[in-house]
Formats: sequence, structure tokens, C-alpha cells
Amino acid sequence: MRIDCITTFPAMFDSIMGESMMKRAQEKGLLEFHAHDLRDWARGAHRKTDDYPYGGGCGLVMMCEPLFAAVESVLGYEAGALPEARAGHDGSTRIIFLAPQGKVFDDEMASRLSTAERLVFVCGHYEGIDERAYSLADDVISIGDYVLTGGELASMVVIDAAVRKIPGVLGAERGAETESFSDGLLEYPQYTRPATFRGMEVPEVLLSGHHGNIDEWRRAQSLARTERLRPDLLI
Amino acid sequence: MRIDCITTFPAMFDSIMGESMMKRAQEKGLLEFHAHDLRDWARGAHRKTDDYPYGGGCGLVMMCEPLFAAVESVLGYEAGALPEARAGHDGSTRIIFLAPQGKVFDDEMASRLSTAERLVFVCGHYEGIDERAYSLADDVISIGDYVLTGGELASMVVIDAAVRKIPGVLGAERGAETESFSDGLLEYPQYTRPATFRGMEVPEVLLSGHHGNIDEWRRAQSLARTERLRPDLLI
Repeated sequence: MRIDCITTFPAMFDSIMGESMMKRAQEKGLLEFHAHDLRDWARGAHRKTDDYPYGGGCGLVMMCEPLFAAVESVLGYEAGALPEARAGHDGSTRIIFLAPQGKVFDDEMASRLSTAERLVFVCGHYEGIDERAYSLADDVISIGDYVLTGGELASMVVIDAAVRKIPGVLGAERGAETESFSDGLLEYPQYTRPATFRGMEVPEVLLSGHHGNIDEWRRAQSLARTERLRPDLLI
Repeated sequence: MRIDCITTFPAMFDSIMGESMMKRAQEKGLLEFHAHDLRDWARGAHRKTDDYPYGGGCGLVMMCEPLFAAVESVLGYEAGALPEARAGHDGSTRIIFLAPQGKVFDDEMASRLSTAERLVFVCGHYEGIDERAYSLADDVISIGDYVLTGGELASMVVIDAAVRKIPGVLGAERGAETESFSDGLLEYPQYTRPATFRGMEVPEVLLSGHHGNIDEWRRAQSLARTERLRPDLLI
């Protein structure tokens, strides 16, 4: 998969993309990542990417022009070709905006995005992107009911959740199959050594070696935890 | 506010904490941030922080011992003092774990956390933290119904959403008062120059200069957008 992020803070991605799973996915050739500075497509000496909102109010709003130019350039289109050029596209490349009014991101969306060939993220500031720029978006996504300073962190969350589902990324040592949400339930509690820590014991069944009982206990714990903490997931 | 993150990937925080709002909050003296390497509290030559799960299964589980030792050290407690030492604490310091079974994070939680004096984030891998370590947590938080590779990105999301609400952080040029969720609604559409872009016009009312009409239009747009995209917020 190839991922491009269009942002006014390209350096923000450095340390997340250079560590842990994201680093390994790139080393394995399963992920190609590029962060682009939106200012490269801004005009004038000041390379301005935002301006005052029409109608007044505090905050600055990101301008259409650099956003359209950046997306066109990153995708290799002629200037002015978007969004018409993508009408009826096959969905293998998706242009994604992060915004509070977006569709609430979940595990199923992560799975769907993980099958795309190419994702282009447009990171605005939540204070506002010119509404007309949303005509570029295939998906407008919200990662939750809270406001972040910019779309960069939200993009990284979506990227992490999707990339780890690309076959081969996690490797044999970890599995995405038994984790929370994969079967609509929260995951069961996990324990590791020591068996007793400061008077707290590991449940006896897990030390029994009886796989049937262990599976049954884990399933029951998973259900009970979901009923107690997230009954909405069971509806 | 002081924030400490306990993690096996301390470098992951570098580029987020060194840019934009987070950087300014630190420069203004409103935020002090420390990322700690959990391995500093792990024993043995390999400084192991995880081990195989009791009862079998794929993935490794983060061990209690280094987690307890790290939190005790970061908070200045004697070894072995937690969690008893914090019984009945006043809430000005909060120990936060990120996990799918946590309380779903929202704007209200962000506001509450923004008033704390000190936040300590424990970043595990979602594959599993030993269940007994959760006895340390004042809050277990989930940023949404998806799975991330580690708690680092989720912590950064919570930190961003909370820190930007600390008075003085955003400054006069931006306001957190009129944005999405602050009044239970999605924000109205924003526009900036040019008034016409590739045939798309800014709504006329915003060019009228009539503040009463503009306020009315924005309120109606905010309501209509919420009804259309997130009716669940209106219940």
C-alpha cells in the first residue's frame, strides 16, 4: 500500500512512521509512506495556506486552492482535473479527510481501508477547512467525538489501525484475529508471569493446561466484560 | 500541567510533542512533558517488559513488575507503595491506561482531564497488558472502537484533546468554544477566499456582513448537519 499525507506539519509523522510496526511494514515493502508539505502548493512569498473565515469568527480556515493543487499533484493529475477526473473511480485509491463531522471510524472501516492500494490523507486543522475542499473526499472520517488540533494525529490513528491489518505486517508473533472488536466483543483479560504479584493471583484455570476450559473461560470473560463495559456493542 | 508517558517507544512522542500546539504549550510554560522508557525499570540483561500469556495464545503480554516500578518511580513513591499509597487521592494526578475496554473518550472527558495538575499515561500494547496492572489506573480510556498497535498514538490523541483546552494554550487566534461537540453539535461549514473557486460559490449570507443573519445561518447549518450526519448526538 502507498500512503500520502498532505499536511502543513510533515515532520509530525517522522517519529511515528519511523518506529515499531510502521517501520517494519515499510522495511518489509508492504507500506510506502510520503508526507507532503502543503506549503509547496501555496502561492505567494508567504506560501499562505489559510485565511480569515467569510462571515467572521475566530480562527483561520484552510484555503481550497493549495489543497486541490496538492491532491492533483500527488495523484499525478493535471491542474484543474479534480474532482471530475475521479468520477466513477474504482476505489483502489481513496482520498480521506479527517473531520469531526465524518463517519465515526471503527474496526470494520479499518479492515476496508487495509485493502486499498493507495490512501491520500488531507490533514486540515479542525478549526476549519473550506467546505468546498470536501468535494475531493472519498471518505470523511472522524476518529471519535473529541476535537484535535489538526488532522495529523487522526490520520496516524487511521493509518495504524488499517496498516496493521495488511496481511504480513504483524507477522506470526502477533495476531489481529483474537483481539477486541474482531468478533464484536472486547478481548478477555491477559496474564503473564509471575503467577502471584503483590498478592494478586493469575486465575487458576489459566495455569491448568486444560485448553478446553481455558477457551471456555476466555469466551465467558470476553462476553461478561463486554456486557459490563460496552453493552452497546452487543445490540 | 505535567504529563509523563511510560512506554517502550519513547521516541514515538518526539515529533508530535515538538511541533505546533504541543510545542507552543511547552514554550509558554503551560505543559511539561516527559516520555520514559519502560525498559529502564525492567530486570535482567534483556530488560524484558513482556512475556508469554498464561493459558497460551499468540502475542506477548506486558508484565506487571516493570509497569508498577515505573509508575512508582515516576510519581516519587517508594517501591511497593502502589496502589495503596494512592487510596483516596484527590484526583489532581491521574494515572491513565489506554485500552479497547476503556471508557470511550469524548470532549467532556477531555475537558475534565485538562484541569488535572498531572497525568501519567501507561502505554501498553493492545495485544495485552497483564490484567493486574490495571489496578494502578484511575482511568482506563478507549479513543474509539478500533485497535491500534500500541497505546502511544492513543495517548497522544488524549493529550492533544486535553492540552488544547488548558486556558492560554490556543491563544487569541483560535477558540475552542465554537467548535464541534462544545455545544453538543457539529460545527457549521467554514469558507475562506476566493468567493468563487472552480465554479463553487461561498453562500451569499456569509458575504452579506449581516451578523444576525450569519449567526442564524450558522446555527441552522450546525443543527442540520448534526441531524443528517450524527443524529445520535441529538438524543
